[in-house]
Amino acid sequence: MKNNRYSFLMALSAFMLISTAAMAQAFVTAPPAPRNGEARPAFRFPPRIISPEVHADQTVTFRFMAADATTVELSGQFLKKNIPLTKGEDGVWSVTTGKVKPDIYPYNFVVDGISVADPNNVDIFPNERFKGSLLDVKGKTPSVQDLQAVPHGKITYSFYHSKNLGLERPMLVYTPPGYTEDTGKSYPVLYLIHGMTDTHETWYVVGRMNYILDNLIAQGKAEPMIVVMPYANPYPALMKKNPQTQMDLMSTKLFTDELTKEIIPYIEGKYRVKASRENRAIAGFSLGGRQTLGAGLGHPELFAYVCPMAPAVFGQGLDESFQNDYAPIDQLKTLKLLWIGCGKDDSLYAGAQALEKKLKKEGVKYEKLYSSGGHTWMNCRLYLATIAPKLFK
Amino acid sequence: MKNNRYSFLMALSAFMLISTAAMAQAFVTAPPAPRNGEARPAFRFPPRIISPEVHADQTVTFRFMAADATTVELSGQFLKKNIPLTKGEDGVWSVTTGKVKPDIYPYNFVVDGISVADPNNVDIFPNERFKGSLLDVKGKTPSVQDLQAVPHGKITYSFYHSKNLGLERPMLVYTPPGYTEDTGKSYPVLYLIHGMTDTHETWYVVGRMNYILDNLIAQGKAEPMIVVMPYANPYPALMKKNPQTQMDLMSTKLFTDELTKEIIPYIEGKYRVKASRENRAIAGFSLGGRQTLGAGLGHPELFAYVCPMAPAVFGQGLDESFQNDYAPIDQLKTLKLLWIGCGKDDSLYAGAQALEKKLKKEGVKYEKLYSSGGHTWMNCRLYLATIAPKLFK
Repeated sequence: MKNNRYSFLMALSAFMLISTAAMAQAFVTAPPAPRNGEARPAFRFPPRIISPEVHADQTVTFRFMAADATTVELSGQFLKKNIPLTKGEDGVWSVTTGKVKPDIYPYNFVVDGISVADPNNVDIFPNERFKGSLLDVKGKTPSVQDLQAVPHGKITYSFYHSKNLGLERPMLVYTPPGYTEDTGKSYPVLYLIHGMTDTHETWYVVGRMNYILDNLIAQGKAEPMIVVMPYANPYPALMKKNPQTQMDLMSTKLFTDELTKEIIPYIEGKYRVKASRENRAIAGFSLGGRQTLGAGLGHPELFAYVCPMAPAVFGQGLDESFQNDYAPIDQLKTLKLLWIGCGKDDSLYAGAQALEKKLKKEGVKYEKLYSSGGHTWMNCRLYLATIAPKLFK
Repeated sequence: MKNNRYSFLMALSAFMLISTAAMAQAFVTAPPAPRNGEARPAFRFPPRIISPEVHADQTVTFRFMAADATTVELSGQFLKKNIPLTKGEDGVWSVTTGKVKPDIYPYNFVVDGISVADPNNVDIFPNERFKGSLLDVKGKTPSVQDLQAVPHGKITYSFYHSKNLGLERPMLVYTPPGYTEDTGKSYPVLYLIHGMTDTHETWYVVGRMNYILDNLIAQGKAEPMIVVMPYANPYPALMKKNPQTQMDLMSTKLFTDELTKEIIPYIEGKYRVKASRENRAIAGFSLGGRQTLGAGLGHPELFAYVCPMAPAVFGQGLDESFQNDYAPIDQLKTLKLLWIGCGKDDSLYAGAQALEKKLKKEGVKYEKLYSSGGHTWMNCRLYLATIAPKLFK
């Protein structure tokens, strides 16, 4: 990557005068004509590739420039299996899918066996282990997860100093519309936890939690609330500090300590919140669902709403968790909501069912939503849109 | 991408009990032993790859899993040219570089000719046209662009409704430490603009503007200020709405209109700001530097501080800009600071020099920093750290 590569790109691109109508026909543009007497660049203008292009009929065209590749496939959570792209004379591979059901889906290209995010799509899935892109197919009418012209909450990226971990830790905080203006008001708080290998950004960028809350609040369906999204996995940072750090992802103690000793006090010190169990909820996906159970069922005196989504719990370990990590059953019976979501095709479905069985046996009330589909963020958004109206009421 | 792929990854990963010491020796972990009697998964555990690994001596090891690739190279803005990785028996390619000068550098792998972001690095360069990763090499002592244990400002992602564009538009706002607490205080505002193909996130994620401001404010070197980072390129959104939209990136009028009619009124209505020209600054990189000149020199009654960084201006068009877009020279002479930054290896260096020549000829005072290097975000951070102490004093 030469220092001047982006400089060239920029200087060349700056001459662009392009209509998308032209681009739709031939999305690879020729070197544009000079303007205002400015010098024509000596370089070939890099092609501008539109990908993904969502058509009015909900079919989608994907494009990827790879003059020398042998095979390019599309892998996406809206597909049953990968589909091949075909190569054009210009070195741009493309494929147009069938009609895609409106939703937001992770996808990537597989170029000669290598997974590649779509370079021309600005929407990236924040994750520690893979880099995927996001396809957003809109329906005829806006959905609860779409950006609409309603009052918008704000997402704040900030850091807190964790004595518990000895680290500066990042978190995202959603404040609802009106939070800044109505300084006389306090709000309940939902702590919302990402999954394994996700980051503090994933509920925002992939989970569209801000659009979901904005829309539900605008419709009067959800209470205005603050949503706190910590980075629940401190191990990468801990390991940078001390390579001997032991990683134990099955234990939720480190997370619960961080949440109860650092994050909640930080939030309640910095934001106008209602600081009582009836005004605290916790929800989380996957490993974050396990952490939700650890912190939520471990501390019913702190949380009256506990919502695991496809939690990473497994039949054989559950009794041990109830014995060692969770509060006594009579305290769990005081929860205002214990809500379990899971996809029926999720490999963690058995764990959700085992949890349900245990709760039923112990006489702890719960609600559930077993949706179609698997361990996906399409389901996460559905779950959040389902629980948000149930909180703090 | 099967629905259950991440489910598998998650369920398997949840069994992990790994010391990094072990990983440092063999960063590809074997399937871990079951725990708490939970079932051993039937699948092979996907390898956990550490990349990039910055060593104590500032050499860096990069790793990339590609069992079937023929060549894997590393492309990085700390390298004079791409360097090859070599393939290990486990299908993981790796290379260890020489000592890298502490800074934050974009890089990517080139796998059989295809640019690929590092899947195991969570830090991604936000951009419309490429997906790169970020290497962060720390020096012996923390630098102005490092996260330090000082009071932290907050970055807020929000949307405003633009009548001018007929769109909900995203922006980032940095509020300095103390903004939330000291509600009696108002602050000056820096409008900070990204480059061509960058997004509203690039100054934050790549430019580390929050660390730079946090540190300079903590040291008493910069005034506490609000920094507003709009998404200066509305064309992708406009084209989605109307494919006939004409893109004209050389004109700064659309940007100036959006800034003066929508963004500044929105910010001054929502935030506690000092609303006068002495308390407004504008700075921007590359195409954002051109926009900085268009809005800043076009409206010296609004901005007393104008700081183009490697602006996309070209000798032949400059006279026309001064004639048509910028305010009369006598008004430009009222600026408190006109600051030009550019790399000496930047292909836009000639434009910066032409701008300087014109200002000198007209007797408009300016300051400049011509740094080594090219059109890079290493230079952007240097420029921001250089100008921040000069603003609002």
